[in-house]
Amino acid sequence: MPITEVLTDHFIATRSHTEALCQPLQTEDYVVQPVVDVSPPKWHLGHTTWFFEEFILRPHYEGYEVYHEDFAFVFNSYYETVGKRVVRANRGNLSRPAVREVYAYRRYVTEAIIQLLEHAPLEQIRELVEIGIHHEQQHQELLLTDIKYILGNNPLLPVYREEGMREYPILEESSKWLGIEGGVYPIGHGGNGFCFDNELSRHEVLLQDFEICNQPVKNRDMMEFIAARGYRDFNLWHAEGWDWVQAEGIKSPLYWHQVDGEWHYFSLAGLVSVAPDAPLAHISYYEAFALAQWLGGRLPTEFEWEAAQQRFSWGTRWEWTESAYLPYPGYSKAEGALGEYNGKFMVNQKVLRGASIATPEGHSRPSYRNFFHPQLRWQYTGLRLAR
Amino acid sequence: MPITEVLTDHFIATRSHTEALCQPLQTEDYVVQPVVDVSPPKWHLGHTTWFFEEFILRPHYEGYEVYHEDFAFVFNSYYETVGKRVVRANRGNLSRPAVREVYAYRRYVTEAIIQLLEHAPLEQIRELVEIGIHHEQQHQELLLTDIKYILGNNPLLPVYREEGMREYPILEESSKWLGIEGGVYPIGHGGNGFCFDNELSRHEVLLQDFEICNQPVKNRDMMEFIAARGYRDFNLWHAEGWDWVQAEGIKSPLYWHQVDGEWHYFSLAGLVSVAPDAPLAHISYYEAFALAQWLGGRLPTEFEWEAAQQRFSWGTRWEWTESAYLPYPGYSKAEGALGEYNGKFMVNQKVLRGASIATPEGHSRPSYRNFFHPQLRWQYTGLRLAR
Amino acid sequence: MPITEVLTDHFIATRSHTEALCQPLQTEDYVVQPVVDVSPPKWHLGHTTWFFEEFILRPHYEGYEVYHEDFAFVFNSYYETVGKRVVRANRGNLSRPAVREVYAYRRYVTEAIIQLLEHAPLEQIRELVEIGIHHEQQHQELLLTDIKYILGNNPLLPVYREEGMREYPILEESSKWLGIEGGVYPIGHGGNGFCFDNELSRHEVLLQDFEICNQPVKNRDMMEFIAARGYRDFNLWHAEGWDWVQAEGIKSPLYWHQVDGEWHYFSLAGLVSVAPDAPLAHISYYEAFALAQWLGGRLPTEFEWEAAQQRFSWGTRWEWTESAYLPYPGYSKAEGALGEYNGKFMVNQKVLRGASIATPEGHSRPSYRNFFHPQLRWQYTGLRLAR
Amino acid sequence: MPITEVLTDHFIATRSHTEALCQPLQTEDYVVQPVVDVSPPKWHLGHTTWFFEEFILRPHYEGYEVYHEDFAFVFNSYYETVGKRVVRANRGNLSRPAVREVYAYRRYVTEAIIQLLEHAPLEQIRELVEIGIHHEQQHQELLLTDIKYILGNNPLLPVYREEGMREYPILEESSKWLGIEGGVYPIGHGGNGFCFDNELSRHEVLLQDFEICNQPVKNRDMMEFIAARGYRDFNLWHAEGWDWVQAEGIKSPLYWHQVDGEWHYFSLAGLVSVAPDAPLAHISYYEAFALAQWLGGRLPTEFEWEAAQQRFSWGTRWEWTESAYLPYPGYSKAEGALGEYNGKFMVNQKVLRGASIATPEGHSRPSYRNFFHPQLRWQYTGLRLAR
Repeated sequence: MPITEVLTDHFIATRSHTEALCQPLQTEDYVVQPVVDVSPPKWHLGHTTWFFEEFILRPHYEGYEVYHEDFAFVFNSYYETVGKRVVRANRGNLSRPAVREVYAYRRYVTEAIIQLLEHAPLEQIRELVEIGIHHEQQHQELLLTDIKYILGNNPLLPVYREEGMREYPILEESSKWLGIEGGVYPIGHGGNGFCFDNELSRHEVLLQDFEICNQPVKNRDMMEFIAARGYRDFNLWHAEGWDWVQAEGIKSPLYWHQVDGEWHYFSLAGLVSVAPDAPLAHISYYEAFALAQWLGGRLPTEFEWEAAQQRFSWGTRWEWTESAYLPYPGYSKAEGALGEYNGKFMVNQKVLRGASIATPEGHSRPSYRNFFHPQLRWQYTGLRLAR
Repeated sequence: MPITEVLTDHFIATRSHTEALCQPLQTEDYVVQPVVDVSPPKWHLGHTTWFFEEFILRPHYEGYEVYHEDFAFVFNSYYETVGKRVVRANRGNLSRPAVREVYAYRRYVTEAIIQLLEHAPLEQIRELVEIGIHHEQQHQELLLTDIKYILGNNPLLPVYREEGMREYPILEESSKWLGIEGGVYPIGHGGNGFCFDNELSRHEVLLQDFEICNQPVKNRDMMEFIAARGYRDFNLWHAEGWDWVQAEGIKSPLYWHQVDGEWHYFSLAGLVSVAPDAPLAHISYYEAFALAQWLGGRLPTEFEWEAAQQRFSWGTRWEWTESAYLPYPGYSKAEGALGEYNGKFMVNQKVLRGASIATPEGHSRPSYRNFFHPQLRWQYTGLRLAR
Repeated sequence: MPITEVLTDHFIATRSHTEALCQPLQTEDYVVQPVVDVSPPKWHLGHTTWFFEEFILRPHYEGYEVYHEDFAFVFNSYYETVGKRVVRANRGNLSRPAVREVYAYRRYVTEAIIQLLEHAPLEQIRELVEIGIHHEQQHQELLLTDIKYILGNNPLLPVYREEGMREYPILEESSKWLGIEGGVYPIGHGGNGFCFDNELSRHEVLLQDFEICNQPVKNRDMMEFIAARGYRDFNLWHAEGWDWVQAEGIKSPLYWHQVDGEWHYFSLAGLVSVAPDAPLAHISYYEAFALAQWLGGRLPTEFEWEAAQQRFSWGTRWEWTESAYLPYPGYSKAEGALGEYNGKFMVNQKVLRGASIATPEGHSRPSYRNFFHPQLRWQYTGLRLAR
Repeated sequence: MPITEVLTDHFIATRSHTEALCQPLQTEDYVVQPVVDVSPPKWHLGHTTWFFEEFILRPHYEGYEVYHEDFAFVFNSYYETVGKRVVRANRGNLSRPAVREVYAYRRYVTEAIIQLLEHAPLEQIRELVEIGIHHEQQHQELLLTDIKYILGNNPLLPVYREEGMREYPILEESSKWLGIEGGVYPIGHGGNGFCFDNELSRHEVLLQDFEICNQPVKNRDMMEFIAARGYRDFNLWHAEGWDWVQAEGIKSPLYWHQVDGEWHYFSLAGLVSVAPDAPLAHISYYEAFALAQWLGGRLPTEFEWEAAQQRFSWGTRWEWTESAYLPYPGYSKAEGALGEYNGKFMVNQKVLRGASIATPEGHSRPSYRNFFHPQLRWQYTGLRLAR
C-alpha cells in the first residue's frame, strides 16, 4: 500500500477510535471537569481537532477556512506561541460549543486533512500528520482515564461499559527477580519509526548490577501495606509525600472503597471487589515509593527499566520510576509552537515507563517516556520493584 | 373554585413555569457551575423537586416510594437536619443524574403531589405545599440568573432567547425626590396571605424625615461614575469594598464590556449597547454604596423603603438597602428542618427590597426581604437613592 | 486648672500609660505578630505616635521636622489618603526600627506636642489632640489584648504580670431579668463631652417591651454548654458560624485549655483554673449567638442595650449585640484623612457595647460603639442575655 | 594533637563562629520570619543546640538533665521520629524563649558536650559530634542568608556590617570554555574525610563530551537579559517557571532594585550599585535555566560539574545544575532519626554544586550536594554554563 494511503488509514482509524471511546457517554458526561487535571471529554474531542487545524491546515492548506474563529481560544491547551486560551481550570465551565457542534467540527477537520493528504506533497505534511496522530493517541488515553474519573467521582457510580474492558488482568505466575548485569547500555529511541523529541538523542548510560522484578506489584501487596498501617508510618514516605498524605487524608489508592470491611474499587464496569492478583493501579509516585520501601525494594531508574525491558512483560500499567523527567544529552526542542510540546515540562515531574490498558495499541514503545507530577493518580499508574 | 383546586392549579402552573424557563437550553447548559454561587440548571430542577419529596411526600404520603435513595444526597442544598449532601462547589462536577432522568424525577413527584392534594386532608399539607411553591418560585429567579451567568461567562456569548425578555425597561420620566415625613410606621407582613418567616412579626419602627427617589438609578449614572474614575477613588468605598475592587480588578458592573470604546452588556438576548435610561443592574452592594455616595445620596434602610414603597413604582430590580439582614423583634424560626430556611443566614448579609424582571409574577410583595452577601452581582441588583 | 493644662496633662498621662503597659515586656515581645489581627506592640507604640505627627504636627507645627521620612510607611494603619503603607500582615516581619528607636520617636513627638500645646492657639488643635488621645486609648486596649495573644499563643505560656490584673472579677449575685418598657428612647451621644463620629447623630428609636439580664453570662454557662455538646449541635449556629466551627476546629473559647479533665485558661497572670462565676470572655459573635440560643435567650440590640444600660452594671466585657455596625441617621464623616476613621468599616461587622477590663478608665461611655468581625475573639468579648 | 582535642577545638570554634555571625544584630533581628523559608536567627541558635542535646547528650551523657523540657518542641525542625514541633511557618510568632535565654541554652549544651568529649569513649560519639558540627555549619550559611533576607526585606534597608564582607568578588578574567572529554568518571565522596550520606556511594558515571565555562555567569549577563526582555519571553522558560514569573511578578533577581534607572542591589553592607563583573547571585533555578537558554548554553548536570571541577575555580556561588536531587546507586539512609537528615527530601528539588561566600570555610567539597526547590532565591545562587 502506498505510504499516503497507510497514513490516511492510520489517521482515519485514530479519529474513529477517539469517537468510539465516547460512544457509551451521555451528553452530560462530555461537559464536566471535576478536578483541574481532568478535562471534559468534549474538550479532548475539540483540542485534538484544533491541533490538526492549527498546525497543519492553517499553514499548509491553501484557502482553508477556519471552522470557527473562537475555537482556538476554547481548545488551545498550553501553546503560548499560538495566543490566549481558556484557563485550564475553566474548561468545565463551558457548556458551549455543544457536543453536537464539536462533532461537526471534527468531521469538518477530518475531511479537510483527508483532502490535504490526497493533494499536498507528502513530504511537507507527513511528519506533522504523524505527530497529530500520536498526539491524538495520547489524548485517547487521557480521555478514557478522565471519563473514569468523571464517573468514579459521581456518587451514583455509573457504569461506563459492562463488558470488554480487561481493566484488571490477573497475574498468574509469582514474582521473580531478574538479575541484570552492570555495563554500558544504549538509551533512547533508535531506528526509523516515530518517536517524540524527549526520547532523543540516543546515548549510552553506565549502569551498576541490579535486579528487577518480572512483573508489577499486585493489589495483594497494597492490601498488606494498608493492613500494616503503611499509610500511617512517616518513615516510609518522602517529607512531601507525608505532607500530601496528611493534607489529603489519603488512606488507600484512588478508587478504592471499603464496603462492609472489604476492599472494592470503581472500575469502568462499575464497583467490583479488589482482585488480589491484579497489578496495582491508581497510585501516586509517593505511594509507589513508600510501598517499595516497605516491600524492601526500590523503584528502578528509567535507564534500568529500559535496559531490562526485554526480559519482562509490560503494558498494563504505567510504572513510576525513580528518575526525574529531564532532557537527554543533546536534547533540542523543535522550532516554533511544537517546541512547546515536551521540553517546557522538564522540571518537578517523574518519568513513567511502560504503557497501560488505556494506551492505544502501538502507541508506546521501550523508549517512550511518560511523565506526571508525583501526586497524580488518575492514570493506571503502578510500580515494579528493583533492588 | 374550591381551595384545593386553586392550590393544585398554582402548584401545576409553578412546576410548568420552571420547565418553560429551561426550554431554550441545550442539554450541556444544564450541567455546568462556573462559580460557586451559580448552580447548574438541572440542580435547580432536582432540588425544588426534592423539597416536595422530602418535606411533604416522605412524611405525609403513606406508602410513598422515594424515587431514588441517592437523590437526597445530590439535591439537598443546606439542610443539615436532613443529612449529608454534595458540597455546594461540586454541583457542577456531576454529569449524572442526566437531564432526562431529572425530568422523569420531576414528573414522578409532581404527579404524587397532585394525588396527595386530591386525597389528603388539606389542612395538613396546605401550608407545606404553599411553602414548596414559593420555594420553587425563588429558584425560578435563581435559575434564570444562573442561566444568564452560564451563557454570559462563555466566550461565545450564546443567546438565551431573542425575544420576549424586557430585561432593560426604559425609564422615561426623570428622577424626582419624594419627601417622606418622619413618624411611626408599621413594618413586616400584615394580612392573611403567604409570607416567609423573616417578614414577621409585624412591628412599629420610628423613622426620621427623609427623601427617596421615585425611580432607581440608571445606567447613565453608572457611565458617568466610571468616566469620573469612581472605581479608582478609595474615598467612595468601604474598606472591604475597596479591597474587593482591587483584588478582583472590578472596573464596571457585571456583564458590561467595552467594545470599540462603547459600553455594551450581555443580556439574555445577547450582547447589546448599554441603554442609558434603563435601570442599572448587576452591581454589588459595595458598588451601590459608592455610586450613591458619588451621587450625593445614600441607600435607604429597608424600613424607609417599606414605608415609602406605595409612593413609587418598583419591580424591575432588586434594590440594595443599607440594612443588614437581621431578625425582626419577636422573630422565631420554625421547628425542624424548615427552621433552617431563613434564620441561620442572618449575619453578614444585606437586605434587598423590591423585585426584579426575573422574579415570578406575584412572588414578591412590599414586606418581602431578599438578602445577599455584599459582593454578589449576578442578580438584577440595582439601587434607589435616599437622602 | 486652665483647659490647656488639663489637656496637656491628659495627653502626657495617656502617653505614659501606653508605655507602662509595655513595662513587663521583653524586647522580643514587641516584635511578633502571630495572627494578622494582632499587631506587634512596637507597631502600636509607633502608630499612635505617627498619628500625632501626621495629623497635628505636620499641618500645624510650623517648621516641624519629621522624625524619619520612612516611618509614615511603616506606621500608617489604613489611611489611604496619607499614602502607601506596610501591608497589615507584614507588621510582624519588621525587626527595625528597633524598640529603642521607637521609644526615641515617641519622646520626640510627645515633646513636640507639648510644645505645640504651649504655643499654638488652642482652638486650632484642641479637637485633634483629643482625638489623638482617644485614639491612643483605643490602642491601649488593643495593645494589652495583643500582648495577651502573643504570650498566650506561645507554647511556654509566659506570664505578663503576676499581680494587679483583675482579669476575671467574680460576679457574686445571681442573674436577674430586668423588664424594660417599650417606647421611644434617645440613642447616640448627647452632651458636650468627646465622642467619635459613629455615635452621632443622637436620634430617637422605638423599642418594644423586652427583658435584659442584670449581668453578663458566666463561665459556668459556657462549661455547661460545652458539656451539653453545644459546639456540635448545628441547630444553635448560624450557617457561617457552623462553617467556622468546623473549619477552625473550635471546641471552646479562646485561651481555654483542658488539663487533666479540667478547664483552665490562659490569663495575663498565667494559666489558671476557669472561675465558674466570672463573666465569660474571648468568644466570637457566633459563639455568643449560639450560647444565647441554648440558654433560651437572645442577644440584645445595641439600642436595647443603650436604653437599659443605667439599670445594670457593665464594664468588664465588651458585649456582643445583635446589631450590625451601620451609620446612624444623619451620620456624616469628617473631611480628609480623619474621615477614614470609622465610616469605611460600616459593613460586615457587629456592634459591641460596654467596656472591658482592658479599656482605659474613662474611655468608654453609654453611647460608645465598638465593632468587630463576627469571628474575632482576642478581645475580652462576652455577652448579656435579652428576651 | 590528639584526635579528641582536634575535635573539641573544631566544636568550640564552630559554636563560636555561629555566635560571631550574630554579633552585628539587634535583639529584634533575632525574632522575625518574613517568609516561611527564612527562620529567625534565634531559632537557628536554638535548633543547632537542640541537635547536640537530642542526638548526643540525651542518649550518651549519663545523668544529663535536659535544659528545658519544652525546647524540643520549639527547636525541632523536621524530625518526626523525635515528636511534635512548632509548625515551620510559626517560628517567627514566638517571642520566647528570649534571645538571652537561647544564649544561656547554648552555653549549657556547649559546656556539656565539652565535658562529654573529655570523659566519654571517643569512638561512641565522634561521628555524632562531627555530624553536629557539619550540621551547625550548614545552619551558619542559612543563618547569614536569613539575616540578609530579614534586613533586605525591611523598608529601612539596614546594614549588617559595613566592612569585611566580600559578597561580590570581581571576576577579572574573561570567560573561557573548557573542553571535557567523555568517558567514565567516578562520582561521589571518596577518601576518609567527613561527608553526608547523600554523597554516597561512590560510583561510576558515563559522560559524553561537553564544554563547561571556567567561571560563573556575571551580573553583566543578567543586565543584558533584562534589557532584552528575557523576563517577558515565555519561550525561554519552563511552563512552571513562566507561571512563577507571572504569579510573583518577577522582573529581576532577588535584592535588585532599580533606582533612578540604574540597577542596585541590597548587600550585607547596604544598598550598592550592581557590579557588572561580579558573579550573579540570588536567582531561582527557573531564572538560571532561562538565562542559560538565552545565552545559548545550558546548565551542567551535577556529574559534569563534579567531573570538571578541578579545571575551574569555584566557591563564591552555589551553582544550579540540571540534575534533580535523587539517591545515588546503593544509597541507604541511616537508622533512627538521623535517617531523616537527607533521604526524605529527594523529590522535587534541584542539586546545586559548589559553595558560596556564605559557606563556612572547609564545609564544602567537590562531592558536596546542596539542594533546593527550584523557585528559591535567598541563597547566593548562581549558575555556570555548559554546552
